[in-house]
Amino acid sequence: MTEKNIIFIGNKPATAYVMACVIQFNSGAKTIVLKARGRAISRTVDVAEILCKRFMKDLVEVTNIQINTEQLENSEGKLLNLSAIEITIKKI
Amino acid sequence: MTEKNIIFIGNKPATAYVMACVIQFNSGAKTIVLKARGRAISRTVDVAEILCKRFMKDLVEVTNIQINTEQLENSEGKLLNLSAIEITIKKI
Repeated sequence: MTEKNIIFIGNKPATAYVMACVIQFNSGAKTIVLKARGRAISRTVDVAEILCKRFMKDLVEVTNIQINTEQLENSEGKLLNLSAIEITIKKI
Repeated sequence: MTEKNIIFIGNKPATAYVMACVIQFNSGAKTIVLKARGRAISRTVDVAEILCKRFMKDLVEVTNIQINTEQLENSEGKLLNLSAIEITIKKI
């Protein structure tokens, strides 16, 4: 079974998401995918770096990074293009 | 000769950097590397997406994305960890 654990990065401090990742990995997850849109993209890179280089150094690694464009409808029904990122982190 | 054209993404609007990329590709560049740190990371993804999916659709593509941590010294001499991104874009 290759269940994917997805964590959506929003407006909380990066360490909150780092902790969520640590908990998931310690509960047996083999892979976590961090997803974010718009301005949260910078924070997503922070989360991946803090996790892989500090909290779980030599235990997990970034295996894939993808970028994308998502179309969203705003409150006035207008279509907006928003950049998105997906960072895959795996247990070594 | 595999000269690398590096564009540092800062605080200007994304389209300013998209234009810089278009000009470099039209002047013969085969590869451009977008680099950014901290909050400019989100804008860097915007630049790559706008360039590859709109301005130079089917002409260029993202071939590599790397994330990193850079250490900077602030004005008080304290070391800061700052996330960084490098997006490589190539002519198809």
